[in-house]
Amino acid sequence: MNIHAMWNDYPQVRSDLLEMLRVIDKNIKIREKQIEQNIKNLTQAGGKLLRPAYFLLASHIGPQHNKEQAIAIAAALEVLHMATLVHDDVIDDAPTRRGLETIQAKFGKNYAVYTGDYLFCVCFKILSRYSDDLAQIDLNTGSMERILLGELDQMGMRYNFNMGVKEYLRQISGKTAQLFALSCYLGAEVSQANNFYKHLAKKVGHNIGMAFQIMDDILDYTKNADLIGKPVLNDMKQGVYSLPLIYAMNQDPQAFLPYLKKKENMTDSDLLAVVNLIHKYKGVEEAQNLASKYTDKAIRLIQTLPEGSYRSQMLRVTLSLLKRET
Amino acid sequence: MNIHAMWNDYPQVRSDLLEMLRVIDKNIKIREKQIEQNIKNLTQAGGKLLRPAYFLLASHIGPQHNKEQAIAIAAALEVLHMATLVHDDVIDDAPTRRGLETIQAKFGKNYAVYTGDYLFCVCFKILSRYSDDLAQIDLNTGSMERILLGELDQMGMRYNFNMGVKEYLRQISGKTAQLFALSCYLGAEVSQANNFYKHLAKKVGHNIGMAFQIMDDILDYTKNADLIGKPVLNDMKQGVYSLPLIYAMNQDPQAFLPYLKKKENMTDSDLLAVVNLIHKYKGVEEAQNLASKYTDKAIRLIQTLPEGSYRSQMLRVTLSLLKRET
Repeated sequence: MNIHAMWNDYPQVRSDLLEMLRVIDKNIKIREKQIEQNIKNLTQAGGKLLRPAYFLLASHIGPQHNKEQAIAIAAALEVLHMATLVHDDVIDDAPTRRGLETIQAKFGKNYAVYTGDYLFCVCFKILSRYSDDLAQIDLNTGSMERILLGELDQMGMRYNFNMGVKEYLRQISGKTAQLFALSCYLGAEVSQANNFYKHLAKKVGHNIGMAFQIMDDILDYTKNADLIGKPVLNDMKQGVYSLPLIYAMNQDPQAFLPYLKKKENMTDSDLLAVVNLIHKYKGVEEAQNLASKYTDKAIRLIQTLPEGSYRSQMLRVTLSLLKRET
Repeated sequence: MNIHAMWNDYPQVRSDLLEMLRVIDKNIKIREKQIEQNIKNLTQAGGKLLRPAYFLLASHIGPQHNKEQAIAIAAALEVLHMATLVHDDVIDDAPTRRGLETIQAKFGKNYAVYTGDYLFCVCFKILSRYSDDLAQIDLNTGSMERILLGELDQMGMRYNFNMGVKEYLRQISGKTAQLFALSCYLGAEVSQANNFYKHLAKKVGHNIGMAFQIMDDILDYTKNADLIGKPVLNDMKQGVYSLPLIYAMNQDPQAFLPYLKKKENMTDSDLLAVVNLIHKYKGVEEAQNLASKYTDKAIRLIQTLPEGSYRSQMLRVTLSLLKRET
């Protein structure tokens, strides 16, 4: 089992995540061994496993701790995330994921659609097998619904040249922050934390997720010049506009529109022109400011959780994740 | 609310199905109103609603009957079926479904992928909200998993010129019979039938589903000459071989191979040649014989269920469904 080096400093989380990976591995069984292997490779490809990790940390907020149950729910959360990744790759026609060829690049979109569906099933299978309280599942389906609604929302907003910050935040709240919020909330829930701390945990997750997604969107613009391009170009061509662009465009829409209106016909030099405009209007800086606000909020909220070693670990993980070099 | 005329002779089932359609309608809420309307139209398009109908009939096998719960589970089963239909249409590039333009034809594959995902969530949302026994959900996730595995299995078998009857039956068992079996089993389960009758109900559903799918596959070959073609051509071109072809090809593989080996490049006259070969080798008749065996088995099993008005209705529905003109 392969795991991201960021967990080397957190032996307990690391060992729980490794056990979680084994649970996932055990629950993926497909007659087509090539597909099975591809899913298993994706699991083992050393993703950061942030959602299950935050869940595991949050599962020490309250007084109870059932390790077997916690690891199963962590597995369900990661499999749910994987299912959305596989379908996102179908939508984005993505060639690689976590450094591996995507299922849809290797076997075609059709396999990828069913593989994502299969992973949704595996998520619910793991969840229903280990979770003894139906309320948790109810929350989960509601959250899952909101995640999908976030994706549909984003689809509907494609090529919306008037998209504002509010719409952007609504989208990433659905498609990213929701699952972070759910992970932290469920952690508090299974540890029998009281309602106050459960909702606090949910807010922690929400703010981490918001900061994480904004920073991810910023990274597209701050990579070395030769690394830029591909993903941004792709998103922009597909009409998905992220925060740095939205902030910059707010300053002077007419400067951007001639390029963006070309939609999927934007050339590499159109893209470069837009990137330059974004820097000119300080879109990246403004986005960074907003990300910092979410990060600071998350940090402040974590500090009001009950004291414990899990809390200092949660703080350290969050700081190293969100104060990362940009 | 629109409902298939086949239920006009069954006033109780009809009124329950209408209420179920209202539950589905109420649970579908998407910001994109066009997509929402499209899903609602699909619900109202007058499909046969066989899976929820069999569930509702089977929910009178045992002594208990909770109408509200029964209607909710029926709704979850139909929504699950709809989710698989939406994704099947993505795979098959289908232009219409139940006489309506498909979501993917109208809004593109990307919307269709997320719409199917959304419907899976709605299924689980309805189920977890109304179902008070986790065992039911567990069964459901296991069954859903097998349905998806059936689809993946079928994908993996594309262009398998050596595909035998056994592989075909395994495929349709997963992709079709499984959901019929689940519907009948869950009906028995919620009515608190004993284990004997629960497993009997499951077998009833399995045999109905097997007969139903074989007959559906036969229909492709027995329509008027001008109606033939499209779907069969499409399936054959995509390497999906159904029972009449498999039976016929078993008699003389060399006669078929030159055509089939052209794969997606098969012309209309190639298709016609294969259809003629299938008739020459009596592939349709053999498939009909096997369908009859499953139908007869289903009928015999229904007759051993506890007596009641539901039972005579189940018999009549099954007879009119499976003894349909071919």
